[in-house]
Amino acid sequence: MSQNKKKPYHHRHAADGVENETALYEGRNAVMELLRAGKTVDKLFVAPDQNGRMADIIAMAKASGAVVVQVDRRKLDAMSETGVHQGVIAQAAAHAYVSLDDILQTARDRGEQPLILVCDGLTDPHNLGAVIRSAETAGAHGVVIPKRRSVGLTATAAKASAGAMEHIGVARVTNLAAAIDTLKEQGVWIFGADAGGDKQLYDAGFAGASAIVIGSEGNGLSRLVREKCDFIVSIPMKGKVNSLNASAAAAVLLYEAVRQRIGEESHG
Amino acid sequence: MSQNKKKPYHHRHAADGVENETALYEGRNAVMELLRAGKTVDKLFVAPDQNGRMADIIAMAKASGAVVVQVDRRKLDAMSETGVHQGVIAQAAAHAYVSLDDILQTARDRGEQPLILVCDGLTDPHNLGAVIRSAETAGAHGVVIPKRRSVGLTATAAKASAGAMEHIGVARVTNLAAAIDTLKEQGVWIFGADAGGDKQLYDAGFAGASAIVIGSEGNGLSRLVREKCDFIVSIPMKGKVNSLNASAAAAVLLYEAVRQRIGEESHG
Repeated sequence: MSQNKKKPYHHRHAADGVENETALYEGRNAVMELLRAGKTVDKLFVAPDQNGRMADIIAMAKASGAVVVQVDRRKLDAMSETGVHQGVIAQAAAHAYVSLDDILQTARDRGEQPLILVCDGLTDPHNLGAVIRSAETAGAHGVVIPKRRSVGLTATAAKASAGAMEHIGVARVTNLAAAIDTLKEQGVWIFGADAGGDKQLYDAGFAGASAIVIGSEGNGLSRLVREKCDFIVSIPMKGKVNSLNASAAAAVLLYEAVRQRIGEESHG
Repeated sequence: MSQNKKKPYHHRHAADGVENETALYEGRNAVMELLRAGKTVDKLFVAPDQNGRMADIIAMAKASGAVVVQVDRRKLDAMSETGVHQGVIAQAAAHAYVSLDDILQTARDRGEQPLILVCDGLTDPHNLGAVIRSAETAGAHGVVIPKRRSVGLTATAAKASAGAMEHIGVARVTNLAAAIDTLKEQGVWIFGADAGGDKQLYDAGFAGASAIVIGSEGNGLSRLVREKCDFIVSIPMKGKVNSLNASAAAAVLLYEAVRQRIGEESHG
């Protein structure tokens, strides 16, 4: 709730007692992905189109039932969160979060062992978007983020995810430690990524039901979350800098899981 | 040369016929890493220090022979490229590029097979910085970037590298295809990262002398560079989005090389 005060592009409307949250999607690619994914766009705001580059987007938006509003570029500048709207902003239902059960169900539906990425307090929307993109390309079944002390699915995160946010479920949980307990009860092993772990990632057993937990940009895993992990796995640091960027670390861990799972398939 | 016109934080002075390029390093961490790495700081610009947080930096800069200049915050705002100078900007010799030979020599000095990352035209300084950080933590011996159609070692890239730029050599070459030929002559295998490759990364032979080539954010590998590669390796894309972020791809490939090299050591 208090988050919405800080994020002006998220608007809540109370209508018939139903809270209806909307969000803005900015830039040609983000808006195009939104329309391609079949999401309902309420309004499309477009700047005067000098060279017809908006024709496709306008046609798709109209076909989907959106109201197309011509506005001048300064209006878009004022609405924009990312600062790079490229002449088009769509207003649509805010990105819907999924539940932990939805994520586990996705794994069952695909006949795969769950592979889940848990982000313990990322604050940079570019990092969250990049992490969601890596999770989607690695075939993970969902991403878990906490409600507090974490960036949410903002327009900037959506842009950084290169459309991946439309194709992978993100669960936003009140209590990350409790969510980890729930995953454990469902037979998921919890691998925290942190320096000084007891295993190198290459020796971690990611082929079974696995949740990989990465820490925040500055502080790594929080104490409580670290204690909940079944294993702490480390990425070898062979230089003088002692940590990877959070989204690079997530990509390395997720693709190590992909590698181990390919190995299992060829043996199984 | 023409690059310097576009990058106002890079100043060239002609003195005694010697071109002396300087650059600005912004923010407490970047300046501290610079001083710790023993680089010569010409001038340190600091805003009034309310709570003594600059005392260490000022003392180190003075000890290293730098001129410390007190300026008001607006002056720093005007000088700043990154917009987050945190009250301190250092002016120092521009980041020195190394040669391909320097990179190969670093590998020889460490008694290791060369591991080199080649970036074919990254344009986002955050991506270049993140890639340099991943290369450094993975123990690579150097990074190669082209002079044209690529971002250079800017203040933003330095900040995104989290100090890694001070610890790994970056070669800036006029002709990337010619540089690849030079590496091949030195016995280095060239692995281009691209969709639709003939090998998955897990089957690539990164344990020998290897250069990994990643493409630009939007366009992947350029045609000429792609043709120069000995192998095209692909990262499996298991979702609907068809590519990883360039820095995530670099991290995944570099750490696959780390894994394969650990395997070699334990067998050798």
